[in-house]
Amino acid sequence: MKQSVPQTLKGFRDFLPEVMTVRNYVKNLLIETFETFGFEPLETPTLEYSSTLMGKYGDEADKLVYSFTDNGDRQIGMRYDLTVPTAKVLAMYNQQIPLPFKRYQIQPVWRAENTQKGRYREVLQCDIDIFGTSSPTADAEILAVINTVLQKLNFKSFTILINSRTVLNNILEACDITENKNSILQSLDKFGKIGEDGVTKELIIKNISKATITALFKYIKIAQPDEYLQSVIDQLKVLGVSENNYKFDPTVVRGLDYYTGPIFETIVTEPKIGSITGGGRYDNLIKTLGGPDTPAVGTTFGLDRIVDCITELNLLPNLPKTKTKILVANFGEETISESLKLVTELRNNNVASSFYPDADKLGKQFKYADSLGIPFVAIIGPDEVKNNQVTIKNMTTGEQKTINQSEVVKFLL
Amino acid sequence: MKQSVPQTLKGFRDFLPEVMTVRNYVKNLLIETFETFGFEPLETPTLEYSSTLMGKYGDEADKLVYSFTDNGDRQIGMRYDLTVPTAKVLAMYNQQIPLPFKRYQIQPVWRAENTQKGRYREVLQCDIDIFGTSSPTADAEILAVINTVLQKLNFKSFTILINSRTVLNNILEACDITENKNSILQSLDKFGKIGEDGVTKELIIKNISKATITALFKYIKIAQPDEYLQSVIDQLKVLGVSENNYKFDPTVVRGLDYYTGPIFETIVTEPKIGSITGGGRYDNLIKTLGGPDTPAVGTTFGLDRIVDCITELNLLPNLPKTKTKILVANFGEETISESLKLVTELRNNNVASSFYPDADKLGKQFKYADSLGIPFVAIIGPDEVKNNQVTIKNMTTGEQKTINQSEVVKFLL
Repeated sequence: MKQSVPQTLKGFRDFLPEVMTVRNYVKNLLIETFETFGFEPLETPTLEYSSTLMGKYGDEADKLVYSFTDNGDRQIGMRYDLTVPTAKVLAMYNQQIPLPFKRYQIQPVWRAENTQKGRYREVLQCDIDIFGTSSPTADAEILAVINTVLQKLNFKSFTILINSRTVLNNILEACDITENKNSILQSLDKFGKIGEDGVTKELIIKNISKATITALFKYIKIAQPDEYLQSVIDQLKVLGVSENNYKFDPTVVRGLDYYTGPIFETIVTEPKIGSITGGGRYDNLIKTLGGPDTPAVGTTFGLDRIVDCITELNLLPNLPKTKTKILVANFGEETISESLKLVTELRNNNVASSFYPDADKLGKQFKYADSLGIPFVAIIGPDEVKNNQVTIKNMTTGEQKTINQSEVVKFLL
Repeated sequence: MKQSVPQTLKGFRDFLPEVMTVRNYVKNLLIETFETFGFEPLETPTLEYSSTLMGKYGDEADKLVYSFTDNGDRQIGMRYDLTVPTAKVLAMYNQQIPLPFKRYQIQPVWRAENTQKGRYREVLQCDIDIFGTSSPTADAEILAVINTVLQKLNFKSFTILINSRTVLNNILEACDITENKNSILQSLDKFGKIGEDGVTKELIIKNISKATITALFKYIKIAQPDEYLQSVIDQLKVLGVSENNYKFDPTVVRGLDYYTGPIFETIVTEPKIGSITGGGRYDNLIKTLGGPDTPAVGTTFGLDRIVDCITELNLLPNLPKTKTKILVANFGEETISESLKLVTELRNNNVASSFYPDADKLGKQFKYADSLGIPFVAIIGPDEVKNNQVTIKNMTTGEQKTINQSEVVKFLL
């Protein structure tokens, strides 16, 4: 009885080698940059007690945490971001972690999003955070990393939007807004997408008075960075961040509940893809989790959006389709030992080499190498064995050349 | 109100930077070796339909799959191994994947194990598999990768135990065993741990007759590799696998249900840690999943056990505690701009550099560098600014040296 082919769950993806090549390029570039800036690796579990995760992201977000009861009747949930689990680590291991602690973390997170919006339910987050310092230099360093990463990824046009919860609170206070603060800020956060008119319409539906809305936009137009945020901005120049690449924007809110100071996100003019980084300062989270008073600031890079973005914008360098340099062909029983010896020697010399396991026709083997993008094929037939030689076919030019077996490694390097 | 500090779930672990350094060393060594052997990267989702996962691993194992109902009322489960999800990929995308397909996959899997046995519930599996060929050369290549990885990891003494389901079936047939096959094989699989006496006791408890048990051990003692397995073994020498590093062992069974031919696992004499690799041929799995008839062979490397093992055996090379080469000290407001310029220049030259964000006493900053294992500290005070100089403290020797700012990069490279 033939079973029907299983499907991948909606919102989840299988990454075949060609896509993995692009993802690994971005991931390795991020790791390299993070380490150049002095960040250290950290990883946390996929599953946590629900009590650790819930109540940190806002009521709406809590519903999007994948959560269930395990065999031991524990309420558990899947990682929703990397910030809360690391805050847990800081709370648990505070005696053995020297501060300031600069960590990077690259792990997937899961969100039970509505897939009709074209959102993924499993995404790879790449976070950097600095724990244990209230210095604005820490915030500025985070922004410098964002700038460096996006430069290295060849983005021509991006803007890091910078704001602060302090600025937003001052605006709300100036407008005498004391109720429905979160709801109003949620609407304001859409300013970049739907403009003043769109936000106004939303606020009217939310029963906010016209006077309040008018006041809100008045104060937004005259808003200035607070003293702390200005001090962050003042250090960007020496850190190599050009004025073209950031902008103070008092309409930026960021969704998560735990931010306390500066907040920032990066947008690109094209494609319309939402923010590709998001972060800010969250000085109370670790204390909320029962840990010592530990200020913190950081950002996440959304690898999936970045990959979508650089693919669409054609920013990818010329990545080889495969790292395999050569396919050693299978000429059949008579010469297989010589062929296997060759592939072993190549590998011992760190030349990435594949061996074709079946004695298929050479034409089929060439076609296979071609479909994988392997640039060379080595053939050892009876004549080559006799003379300790090997025939190398260049798959790009089609040219064939017979050389001594002892010269193959040198030929390929 | 101070909350109690959240805990990490039993069987799960937070990996702080020092441990991550070891894990990344092993992971990168595996990736490098896999690519040298011509394997391509692949990743699959964390969550799959339960129907994809269940019934592939055996009845006992099915209970250990983390499974739950999602918001859309789908029965879903967390990845339990990397073989079944990739078999799903081969079934789904068979039109666009050229065969033979050699893929590596490095992702965590989850098992709701009894933690009292000291087992982890989240482990990192590192798999290589070759799909689409029945050639014994493919099996031999998998064994060659195992051998190369363990050599590179400096294992002095390891044995790849080799057997075949064909051999086991022949033994069962010779003993006229037609019932309780799986149960008998499960006991036999413990031979390495509990010996002939232990297995005999278990089989007696399972009501297997003494005559059958005697026959079983008689045939095990005279068992030889079947023709296919012999052909695999015959190719190991040219692939550089020494006879000291593998052994035919007719008592090896491997737990998973899907194996059809050769099976293999690697044991180390010390420490007593169970097998560190496990794999075999599974020619029917993709067809079982509704895909085309696609033979397959592969192995998994258990990164967690390997890390535990090489740590206990002291096989680790001298890994630096941190990749950060230098900490640029914070001498206060007056010179912070010069210090930030220096750290930016170092980073632009790919020197991994950290900046100390607070103007703490230099002694505290030195201590911080020391605790992280950062080998150098750069100090720019007012005197250094005046002369475009920088003082470099070598944290290993304690020596201080004042040099021109333009020479720092060269000094550190």
